[in-house]
Amino acid sequence: MGAICRAMQNCGLDQLVLVNPSPDMDPVELRKMALKALPVYKNRQEFDSLEEAVADCGAVAMTSGVDGFYRDHASTPRQAAPELLEIAHQKPVAIVFGSEDKGMRTEELKFATHLLRIPSHQAYSSLNLSQAVMVVLHELYQASDDFSLGEEKTPPADHRFMERMFDCWDQAMQDIHFCEDEKRDHMMLGLRRVMTRGSLTENDVKIMMGLARQASWAAKNLPPAKENA
Amino acid sequence: MGAICRAMQNCGLDQLVLVNPSPDMDPVELRKMALKALPVYKNRQEFDSLEEAVADCGAVAMTSGVDGFYRDHASTPRQAAPELLEIAHQKPVAIVFGSEDKGMRTEELKFATHLLRIPSHQAYSSLNLSQAVMVVLHELYQASDDFSLGEEKTPPADHRFMERMFDCWDQAMQDIHFCEDEKRDHMMLGLRRVMTRGSLTENDVKIMMGLARQASWAAKNLPPAKENA
Repeated sequence: MGAICRAMQNCGLDQLVLVNPSPDMDPVELRKMALKALPVYKNRQEFDSLEEAVADCGAVAMTSGVDGFYRDHASTPRQAAPELLEIAHQKPVAIVFGSEDKGMRTEELKFATHLLRIPSHQAYSSLNLSQAVMVVLHELYQASDDFSLGEEKTPPADHRFMERMFDCWDQAMQDIHFCEDEKRDHMMLGLRRVMTRGSLTENDVKIMMGLARQASWAAKNLPPAKENA
Repeated sequence: MGAICRAMQNCGLDQLVLVNPSPDMDPVELRKMALKALPVYKNRQEFDSLEEAVADCGAVAMTSGVDGFYRDHASTPRQAAPELLEIAHQKPVAIVFGSEDKGMRTEELKFATHLLRIPSHQAYSSLNLSQAVMVVLHELYQASDDFSLGEEKTPPADHRFMERMFDCWDQAMQDIHFCEDEKRDHMMLGLRRVMTRGSLTENDVKIMMGLARQASWAAKNLPPAKENA
């Protein structure tokens, strides 16, 4: 239960509803797993039946780990996520999970407007409950587009800046006597391959340009080490 | 650890590698959480250092829950998954997770060829370790396209069959005196809206057609109930 509360808060949700919860919840374990998400549990609602719990919901999505009678129109959480988010603009959407051991019963599945099946391998297709919750909430959260990755500190280097860096490396190859002159164009193509695997930032290019320049400088200015003198 | 083994098997993976594992693993808890996936733990490899553990890997993807110095080029597991799967055709790919409490240290992150950041909400951005594992493996498994949903028992109903069903409903509306004749076309459009929210299977249509026909039959053939007689 603690891990479920944490998963909910990880994905920006906080309305936990329990139907006939088992009375023997270990409060120490709960706190240990929920950590900062304990308020999700404290603010939970409880109902005696699934039907009451979902009464005001505009969509009722249920997960089922098994195929079978009246379960063969399931979609993956990824397929269903956009529609569930759309409905959530107007009415609450229930994402319903069965108990760890028994899952959803067929007589409960009849209330589902959306039946979800989490992709899993035949080697062991049944997921741990809190991980099943995490997968479905992750798919909803990712579909909500609420998240953006951290920004790079400097913008991508432009073409002109990249070419200045490659000029420095071309010069450095000459200064450090890296290869014969007629092979240099070939080597530069190899170097370009490595440095253009993806977009480099201005900071990245500054480091690589500084390295080339320093190699040129060192080749021309440092005295030979004693053992080579 | 047990939940991680189970997540691995859920997603078709079985090569668990531990670096300097803590010696105080609770074997009862392990079995309880791993269930059928216990062999994943039993067949684990152990190494003294991360560097040895990933030595033969063609890609080393690490997860980091925090932004910060040299972590701002991270991608989401979903973005990175296709490339990681591609590399896995030629060399092992390591998916590296830090410990539950400390995560990956900066001096370990330098070995990463791919830095992963799981989308999470600012309310509580840090994931439980076994759930973080599940999210990344789920993204890889989903990208692998290994999974297919159960098939419907009958194919989608074709247009002709759907129209036969609507004809039966049109007839039933007349037979049960559902509405005035001039409103019937309007009502039929409403009925069509409901029954064409998604593709129906032949079985679905058979049920709905049978229902319409039986309503027609009952309206014409059943004797009036006694209280109305």
